[in-house]
Amino acid sequence: MAKKTTVYDIAKELNITVSTVSRALNNISTISESTRKAVIETATRLNYRPNKIASSLTSGKTYTIGIIVPSAQVQFFASVIHALETHLKSFGYSILLYQSNESFISEKNGITTLLEAQVDGIVASMSLETKDPSHFEKVKEEGKPLIIFDRTHDDLQCAMVKIDDLHAGYLATKHLLDAGYRKIAYITTKHKIKIFKERYDGYLRALQEAGLPANPGYTIAGELNVEGGYRGTHELLKFRERPDAIIGGDDYVALGIIKALHDKNIAPPEIGVIGFANQNFSEHIIPSLSTIDQQALKIGKECAKMFLKIIEQPLSARTEQKPVVIEPLLLARESTNRKK
Amino acid sequence: MAKKTTVYDIAKELNITVSTVSRALNNISTISESTRKAVIETATRLNYRPNKIASSLTSGKTYTIGIIVPSAQVQFFASVIHALETHLKSFGYSILLYQSNESFISEKNGITTLLEAQVDGIVASMSLETKDPSHFEKVKEEGKPLIIFDRTHDDLQCAMVKIDDLHAGYLATKHLLDAGYRKIAYITTKHKIKIFKERYDGYLRALQEAGLPANPGYTIAGELNVEGGYRGTHELLKFRERPDAIIGGDDYVALGIIKALHDKNIAPPEIGVIGFANQNFSEHIIPSLSTIDQQALKIGKECAKMFLKIIEQPLSARTEQKPVVIEPLLLARESTNRKK
Repeated sequence: MAKKTTVYDIAKELNITVSTVSRALNNISTISESTRKAVIETATRLNYRPNKIASSLTSGKTYTIGIIVPSAQVQFFASVIHALETHLKSFGYSILLYQSNESFISEKNGITTLLEAQVDGIVASMSLETKDPSHFEKVKEEGKPLIIFDRTHDDLQCAMVKIDDLHAGYLATKHLLDAGYRKIAYITTKHKIKIFKERYDGYLRALQEAGLPANPGYTIAGELNVEGGYRGTHELLKFRERPDAIIGGDDYVALGIIKALHDKNIAPPEIGVIGFANQNFSEHIIPSLSTIDQQALKIGKECAKMFLKIIEQPLSARTEQKPVVIEPLLLARESTNRKK
Repeated sequence: MAKKTTVYDIAKELNITVSTVSRALNNISTISESTRKAVIETATRLNYRPNKIASSLTSGKTYTIGIIVPSAQVQFFASVIHALETHLKSFGYSILLYQSNESFISEKNGITTLLEAQVDGIVASMSLETKDPSHFEKVKEEGKPLIIFDRTHDDLQCAMVKIDDLHAGYLATKHLLDAGYRKIAYITTKHKIKIFKERYDGYLRALQEAGLPANPGYTIAGELNVEGGYRGTHELLKFRERPDAIIGGDDYVALGIIKALHDKNIAPPEIGVIGFANQNFSEHIIPSLSTIDQQALKIGKECAKMFLKIIEQPLSARTEQKPVVIEPLLLARESTNRKK
């Protein structure tokens, strides 16, 4: 077996002091980012392996960060996880994953499990069931950074990374108005989640600005999936005065809308269709689907940066972090491309 | 603050001995599954929090398991992660995630990082770049379970969970033959990955059984994405004797095939199209896409079961595990539903 690499080997290789190597490996903030990166790269290349468990007993750090998401299978969350892991890895952190599966109890257990595992901080997006977010307070009580993304909660004071959902709803609606659509329906979730309410408020604001009344029958609250879009559209098509455009609560809802229109021999953009999320398939279906990109990769990276920023501050000097608000992007495609 | 829950509280609650609780929490195999589950549920409910770091120094276990995948953003891997985490969570394990991003170097670093973090075992699927899998030997050298899924390697002896890829390719081709298609093309990846070669071999076998020659021009090796399918199809459509069906290496390739056919005013099933993977969108596009389901959730669950089975065996008594081979499922939909 080759000789075990020590901090002395890394210091020699980079021509810096052992103390600098140690500070870099322990992520102490008096080290420049470039030095830290060089140390971590050299440590990796030389196969340096500290006993993390033993060293964590003295440093109190494990270089793991917990992430709680409703499901790693949902593309938005998968993309956030992807970006978070990719970014934090280069700073020597690993990601401990916990899925709430949209269950409040499971989310509570997730906090307990991750704190037990001595993570250095937690990044989370709340389950649909979570009304009382007090279990998250435990993370703060242990002096660990807590960052909530996308699905946030007004009762919880902590670092946040979110998208401007009101603007997302506004953008989608304004785009349809600009394309000449006037009778715009909206199929959304029946769940009372803030981000969905904000998107809907954006829809109302755009209609109001255009001097158009919001027809209450044009709002369908059901399930946020293909079936929900399909059923909702069949309901909307029964009206004598049927909508000329439909907003889907996400891209899967939009797929259901397109399916239901197809049953009646209608193809977008004859009736305009727009979704949210910019799922992988949206660009490639026929007709291609207009949508609002929620910039999941950017959200993941911002969560990583926020964590690194907080963890470098001494506990006593931590200041409240301003929420990072990410702008949604309109992607106008064939499904709303009506000749005016 | 409430009194800290101990193993005594759990034993009292369940009316069992402290020794049984301890054995259940330490996952020792002389405990029945129902007792173990009851203990874990009670421990969770009573908010029992052992100091995992301290206890791991004596038990040598951290109740974390590492997973290395090319990307958590790819739906197949996201689904495997989802199932693995969901299943192992009920046995008290957490998942430490590492993405190779299809890089050999990164995958090697992943093994080092996860072993440093003292995971109890590793589940992995190899990067496209990995030709020499010897870095995985380190996991076995440390006496930790290693389970490779989907993208396996002949040079690596370890537990494996995979899909019968030859049968997957055979099923797709046989289905097209049964639907009356005779000139069947195949768009696949240029990478020399075993699973893709096996699927292709299944295609050749089905053609041979049907007494049909494999036209070499009908095989296009490019990129495994929408663009790859799109370009490949435009090449195929240039032939004087053009194919009457095209197999896409995955569902994104199939999306590209459908797009290219649309350019020429052809819609499936006029030319039959089938993919692999059963992505979320496949069922819902118009026409719906025939595909081969790779049963990602089943793969994830089988990896979890394999890990639990191995970890319960004393190191000295560990026997070689037979590979778990999962049967692919044909999902016949509109894109191949030609009237014969």
